[in-house]
Amino acid sequence: MRALVRRGPTLQVADVPDAVPGGGQVVARVLACGICGSDLHAVDHLEHGVAIGLRSGAADTIDPTCDLVMGHEFCAEILDHGPGSDRRLKPGTRVVSTPFAFGPLGPELIGFSTRYRGAFAERVVLTEALLLPVANGLSSDAAALTEPLSVGTHAVAVAAPTPRSVALVVGCGPIGLAVIVALKRRGVGPVIACDFSPARRARAERLGADIVVDPATTSPHGEWERHDVPATLASLGPAQLAGRSLRDAIIFECVGVPGMLQSLIENAPPTAHVVVVGACQEDDRILPVIAINKQLRFSFVFAYSPDEFAETLAALAEGEIDADAFLTGAVALDEAPAAFRRLATPDDDVKVVVRPWQ
Amino acid sequence: MRALVRRGPTLQVADVPDAVPGGGQVVARVLACGICGSDLHAVDHLEHGVAIGLRSGAADTIDPTCDLVMGHEFCAEILDHGPGSDRRLKPGTRVVSTPFAFGPLGPELIGFSTRYRGAFAERVVLTEALLLPVANGLSSDAAALTEPLSVGTHAVAVAAPTPRSVALVVGCGPIGLAVIVALKRRGVGPVIACDFSPARRARAERLGADIVVDPATTSPHGEWERHDVPATLASLGPAQLAGRSLRDAIIFECVGVPGMLQSLIENAPPTAHVVVVGACQEDDRILPVIAINKQLRFSFVFAYSPDEFAETLAALAEGEIDADAFLTGAVALDEAPAAFRRLATPDDDVKVVVRPWQ
Repeated sequence: MRALVRRGPTLQVADVPDAVPGGGQVVARVLACGICGSDLHAVDHLEHGVAIGLRSGAADTIDPTCDLVMGHEFCAEILDHGPGSDRRLKPGTRVVSTPFAFGPLGPELIGFSTRYRGAFAERVVLTEALLLPVANGLSSDAAALTEPLSVGTHAVAVAAPTPRSVALVVGCGPIGLAVIVALKRRGVGPVIACDFSPARRARAERLGADIVVDPATTSPHGEWERHDVPATLASLGPAQLAGRSLRDAIIFECVGVPGMLQSLIENAPPTAHVVVVGACQEDDRILPVIAINKQLRFSFVFAYSPDEFAETLAALAEGEIDADAFLTGAVALDEAPAAFRRLATPDDDVKVVVRPWQ
Repeated sequence: MRALVRRGPTLQVADVPDAVPGGGQVVARVLACGICGSDLHAVDHLEHGVAIGLRSGAADTIDPTCDLVMGHEFCAEILDHGPGSDRRLKPGTRVVSTPFAFGPLGPELIGFSTRYRGAFAERVVLTEALLLPVANGLSSDAAALTEPLSVGTHAVAVAAPTPRSVALVVGCGPIGLAVIVALKRRGVGPVIACDFSPARRARAERLGADIVVDPATTSPHGEWERHDVPATLASLGPAQLAGRSLRDAIIFECVGVPGMLQSLIENAPPTAHVVVVGACQEDDRILPVIAINKQLRFSFVFAYSPDEFAETLAALAEGEIDADAFLTGAVALDEAPAAFRRLATPDDDVKVVVRPWQ
């Protein structure tokens, strides 16, 4: 079958061995698979990513000298079941799932594994127990958004906003926008969003951000006082020192480059909860004592739970999410290498999906 | 009156203007005041600390070119009330209090303020509304432990341990030991403690640590699996990926030097909650993506709430805390400069109190 293959630091469409389901697995025809920032990063930096994974305590599941088929944001149609499956979902059913596989080495990420190839391919092997059927009305492109949108659902669940929370989303790429969607679905407001790109700011607004800021001209941290969040230690009174603030600040870091964390440490209001969604893959420098003085919290988040994934799919299927605001392109497999190159410097693009059947 | 004065980077006992209470304040005779690591640090690095405070958004309350009287871990006896006070507590009453004052610039820390002098002095001005009487039986030296022990009470409150929590305390100086006390008072177990110093390890054990580790020979992170905490991403199963672990890890960082946070990022189990109590005052280097992969949480904590302070005092007064395990020395004001020098390289010392009346 044909697949988009990372072979060394180049992408090419090539023939790979066909997808054959094992026990508890299905083989499915890929209908759409979104290109993720982590895919873009892995093209040039796979060896670094593998080393980081091992340092993180993950199993050794990627051999960077082998061909790698990426793609973990997929919607696919069941073709056949492997041996010993319960055939709960019939062939022809369109499905999405969390991109996990459970092999002899422990959990692996489909699309970031030499053993479990991803969905930038005509067919993919998936774990039957994780499959969720896609309701008829939802397009396959939109269903493929379940994965990145679930990252936002999870980040907001970890943030645990209350009616008194004021949220700031730093960076309005696909993940920042997914966070905005999750915040507005939970009724959080105001949501302040900031990004240097006018196109991204416009999408943030379209998706419900209440206040949109260009950090080149205006610090988003100027908004706190306006929304009853004490912005500095000096502005705290006895009640706040005892842990009672008027409103609380939640900040979602969705950029993931060095310097972001220290910028938040210096500028966040006291007692802010920083949810770190952007994965900074380089050494970063912080000054911890300022975080101590302000009693900041940092929650580093990754992925989502199966429940969050299912809930996000349901929200998409019920039309609660403006999927079109995310979908800015669809390409065939042959066009995927060019799409990867274009997304390396994204402008208006948010989410481009690859349709291997096209 | 006589006081221990930081004048430039030297400490000396000198005459300073007498303590005169203003509205809502009392003047009190200092019975005991503990020497804190932050006092030691400020002798040589006050200018740096002031700059950090300003970067943290604190009010500009310390003029490092002026004499500074430190001391914020105090027990004192009320001598007289200022004008307009409610005289709730009579002269002669022994008191402790959180070291806060509320002036025109907002909250200030008594002992780290040019305006509100600390308790390394014969007399000190305190905020009447914050005073708590010391029950008769409790020695003044032990009552002066309320402040540092409250730091442990607060850190453990932020950690919010459950019966399934396993705790690791990294660093068994006064703050690490205070955390151990607070953990054991809440029934947390096992508590793993580690420190390079045999004397500190012995005190950790005396205060209830269940497992005591010398990190020079043994990684404390070898304990997790033994206590049903999945230690690596590779060891997680589907249940843990869905957020359900057998037991959860809480790590208290009580050292506060560069490299500690990254060491924990690399070695902590997935989903661990790191409570950062040690205040690293220098730039530090972390690799955020590993914290993302493991979904680590970091809560940077500072001080305590008034309730936590009162609760800690009550526990001391009721004999629930082995105060003698902390009290390793008491010196007169004249001996304080030498005590500061000795504590710069602490060996067996934990808490040395200054008794200005002696």
